[in-house]
Amino acid sequence: MKTHSSHHTSTLAGPSINQFTTRSHNCGELRISHVGQEVTLCGWLEFSRMNKFFTLRDGYGTVQSIIPEDVCHKFNLDQLAFESILRVTGTVQPRPDGQANKSLPTGGIEIHVSQLEVLNEAKKRLPIHVKDHNRAKENLRLEHRYIDLRNRELQNNLRLRSQVIMKMRECMINDYGFVEVETPTLFRRTPGGAQEFVVPSRKPGHFYSLVQSPQQFKQMLMVGGIDRYFQIARCYRDESTRPDRQPEFTQLDIELSFTDREKVIDLIEHVLIKSWPYDDNPIRGPFPRMTLAEAMERFGSDKPDTRFGYELQNFTKLLATQLTMPEGVRKQDFRAYGVVIRAEQAQKLASGLKKSLEDIAKKSNFCKFTQSQITPDWSSGPIVRLLGKESAEALCEQYSLRPGDLLLLGWGKQTYVQNMMGRIRLAAYEALEMRNLVPARQSHAHNFLWVVDFPMFSENEETGQIESTHHPFTAPHPEDSASLNADFTDNIYNIRSLAYDLVWNGVEIGGGSIRIHNSQLQRMVLQDVLKIEHAHLHHLLDALESGAPPHGGFAIGLDRYVALLCNAASIREVIAFPKSLDENK
Amino acid sequence: MKTHSSHHTSTLAGPSINQFTTRSHNCGELRISHVGQEVTLCGWLEFSRMNKFFTLRDGYGTVQSIIPEDVCHKFNLDQLAFESILRVTGTVQPRPDGQANKSLPTGGIEIHVSQLEVLNEAKKRLPIHVKDHNRAKENLRLEHRYIDLRNRELQNNLRLRSQVIMKMRECMINDYGFVEVETPTLFRRTPGGAQEFVVPSRKPGHFYSLVQSPQQFKQMLMVGGIDRYFQIARCYRDESTRPDRQPEFTQLDIELSFTDREKVIDLIEHVLIKSWPYDDNPIRGPFPRMTLAEAMERFGSDKPDTRFGYELQNFTKLLATQLTMPEGVRKQDFRAYGVVIRAEQAQKLASGLKKSLEDIAKKSNFCKFTQSQITPDWSSGPIVRLLGKESAEALCEQYSLRPGDLLLLGWGKQTYVQNMMGRIRLAAYEALEMRNLVPARQSHAHNFLWVVDFPMFSENEETGQIESTHHPFTAPHPEDSASLNADFTDNIYNIRSLAYDLVWNGVEIGGGSIRIHNSQLQRMVLQDVLKIEHAHLHHLLDALESGAPPHGGFAIGLDRYVALLCNAASIREVIAFPKSLDENK
Repeated sequence: MKTHSSHHTSTLAGPSINQFTTRSHNCGELRISHVGQEVTLCGWLEFSRMNKFFTLRDGYGTVQSIIPEDVCHKFNLDQLAFESILRVTGTVQPRPDGQANKSLPTGGIEIHVSQLEVLNEAKKRLPIHVKDHNRAKENLRLEHRYIDLRNRELQNNLRLRSQVIMKMRECMINDYGFVEVETPTLFRRTPGGAQEFVVPSRKPGHFYSLVQSPQQFKQMLMVGGIDRYFQIARCYRDESTRPDRQPEFTQLDIELSFTDREKVIDLIEHVLIKSWPYDDNPIRGPFPRMTLAEAMERFGSDKPDTRFGYELQNFTKLLATQLTMPEGVRKQDFRAYGVVIRAEQAQKLASGLKKSLEDIAKKSNFCKFTQSQITPDWSSGPIVRLLGKESAEALCEQYSLRPGDLLLLGWGKQTYVQNMMGRIRLAAYEALEMRNLVPARQSHAHNFLWVVDFPMFSENEETGQIESTHHPFTAPHPEDSASLNADFTDNIYNIRSLAYDLVWNGVEIGGGSIRIHNSQLQRMVLQDVLKIEHAHLHHLLDALESGAPPHGGFAIGLDRYVALLCNAASIREVIAFPKSLDENK
Repeated sequence: MKTHSSHHTSTLAGPSINQFTTRSHNCGELRISHVGQEVTLCGWLEFSRMNKFFTLRDGYGTVQSIIPEDVCHKFNLDQLAFESILRVTGTVQPRPDGQANKSLPTGGIEIHVSQLEVLNEAKKRLPIHVKDHNRAKENLRLEHRYIDLRNRELQNNLRLRSQVIMKMRECMINDYGFVEVETPTLFRRTPGGAQEFVVPSRKPGHFYSLVQSPQQFKQMLMVGGIDRYFQIARCYRDESTRPDRQPEFTQLDIELSFTDREKVIDLIEHVLIKSWPYDDNPIRGPFPRMTLAEAMERFGSDKPDTRFGYELQNFTKLLATQLTMPEGVRKQDFRAYGVVIRAEQAQKLASGLKKSLEDIAKKSNFCKFTQSQITPDWSSGPIVRLLGKESAEALCEQYSLRPGDLLLLGWGKQTYVQNMMGRIRLAAYEALEMRNLVPARQSHAHNFLWVVDFPMFSENEETGQIESTHHPFTAPHPEDSASLNADFTDNIYNIRSLAYDLVWNGVEIGGGSIRIHNSQLQRMVLQDVLKIEHAHLHHLLDALESGAPPHGGFAIGLDRYVALLCNAASIREVIAFPKSLDENK
């Protein structure tokens, strides 16, 4: 096997992407340095004209080819449908003076063809064109994905995805000694979430479920002494057509024993930094950090986009008495926030913005919202009508509001009004961006951010019932765990957990926590606080009593993360065969 | 982030398996060279005595610890249940003279403990003991897998599995430029195999299926220009309790374009050689090769175990007229085979063998079988009775049979008698092994073998209908493809395909083929030969007409391959959370 001995050199020189094929080179790699070499290429006929010139494409690029006059008559290229498969042998030649194409990596050369073989003819009139990736209707493109995938953009996305995930694995396994363990995706059905796919088994009355995450399995691994686990895990969620969701998705799932929050955060930063694909635009740690309280206060979001300012201004103290309290809001929960757009920008904004901000406000419960331009005349104007002259003046003075400035003002129940104003802030900035009134947010900006100190429990917005903010296995913050042990009442919502989210450019790309390893504490959380019938979870409790190390972990949603890395409009652009929207309905 | 800069050195020195934890070292790595160092270890209390000595275990090993007399009183170790979780700080010391334990990697040292903290107490009386891995009942072990997993054997198996698969990935991606693509496991249900799991979706009357393999998706990727695909793919098969099967399993799935059979075989050999985990016992290519015809003729199996001889002897010519033809066998299909066990071994065999060989024979249709010792007296004995004196003598002379030799003789319809005699051969050798009459087969012997030249079609043994031997997308052997294009009749079963199986020590670990890329040929195979309603497969035919390169691939069953690598009794020993047999029922 003569090629065995060559593998070390090939590794050093990059992968041997032509080995085990009938080509000598691929269509993307030929340069001036190859001039004079005889090469064999295989690929798709992208374009031809005059039975003489043609472009051959494969997954690595395109190359211009020429059939010399004296061999032209042997081929009838113009009869051949585009996208047919060819094998071409020829000599690499420099393009004639002045004809080099600098926008194409192979633009300096052309192939002078000596042999041409049609390996597989395509039919004429394909339903979509490879170049129409961004123009053809998505459902048509998904139906004929085998054509759409030839598009350079999708090729790059899928190849980048493979590279990034490989780098993650190299980091996890080779650098840090993690063990990749495949956990089941089919498991015995226990009464579970509404979003669980159920799979009937052959045994009548018995069902499997498809896992929503490997959470329980990875905790079992910790108890089982596989103390550094990770997996690129397929997970399943039965969701109706939420726009950017798929019923199956992939996450980088990590868990380790004998660790703490700081160490997990450090690990995740290392993994992202080492697997970052853009050497010319590297990221560095440590990533900034923010408590959830600060994120909500300044950005009105648990996943703040910190690429721009326009932060929320807290007007609560100033306006506590002037504003009408929305129904159902207790005084201690009342908050008022403003976002200010300066006159010079405000006057150039599209008129549609007003309406779209109002639409956001309408969807927010327990909140009120008003937007108005500061008028030069203090005796009139909506702000004055709303607050009275005195408060309006105080507000303008304190926040240096000047005539023409646009004030976006929201008030109501704390979390609700924060969330509303967070959405208002985003929508306003988008509008400013559209008119080029502010710097555009860069997709490859490095605004990674840790959000920490989530409350351990929160109130379900619909049912009012208590639930875990993260999940029921999340450990309490050590500073607050005393309150959890005590006779908790109303302050239960003040107990912080050891959960942490990672946000990139305003998108949550992952989350994790330190878990509860003490069986009594876990039993109390399940039984006394959450009132979950713990019979369903006795397996976990048994495990925690059988020698369970302290442990914690993290999961990164890879579809979304890679979509952000690729600056793709949808996660469907980084998945080879996504379900179409129709299919999910 | 001070640790960032250190990652290059850590890579060179092996993975940093203690980074991001609260331990300084693990329980398996301490040696004489660490003597004098203060270390912090975390792990499971494996054993303690006299409130003074204890053994701490983690996933990397065990270490002996001693609590010095003057600190003993601070701890009440003997009260603590085994398997409780401890954090121990102490100094590494050499064991006293003569007390080193050479069978333990850490046997030269012990920890003199200065601090001990109980991180999590275990309950007394766990349902299974970690050391009882091979003794406790399997269902009990599976129920408490989080304890069983701490066993050294399972730890090694799962860690080896992760390492081998990582090496495969490094080879595929870094050496050969393959792209790992995640294909769907849930797909729109088309009327499919009986073994398919069906998943109801939210849309009434609409179903997903769980994929049995990514075959169609990987062919679509080839058409889509992802010309070097692989995936460590989860696959699903709804099977009742076949002993060593799981409803979900993992395969290394590979496909590449512009290739041929020799190149795929070469690739797979490279991948296995490079990912082989035993440096002290390496494997080398090229692997031997055998046609299916030869494998059946010599070993009576499509997956011959070539670690031993006792090959089938073809007695057909000699005995064609002497033996009674079993019912339903045409003359041209008649074959007779013998396996000979020499007198010195035959006389030491257990008496039970005769019965078990007869049981094998009873299960074989269209066959007859007899076993008899050659008697010194040629006028009597079963062989003489069966064949007549003349033929019996000729047989003995031609095959040097001597008195006392045991002749295992089978005859009947070709494939059936070959398979029967293959099983007879295996059973006989096992019996010889049990009595130490022959060298035991080594689990790590390197008997890799390619089996090639499978027939493209075969007759279903039950229905008599024609079906694909491999699958309907397998290309015909170029030497035989003319017959496929012609007006095929009876000779359809003589057409060979470009399928190939890889066998290791008598177990099929993978298979693959060159696929049909021509849509007309594919349509003919589906429509004219197999009579499959091709409406179900129009998607594939459409794809083949839209610019489909020649392509081929392979898949290795990783559960079984890793089980063989680990010399494990069952694939359940290399899966973290296998389904128990009960569950599959």
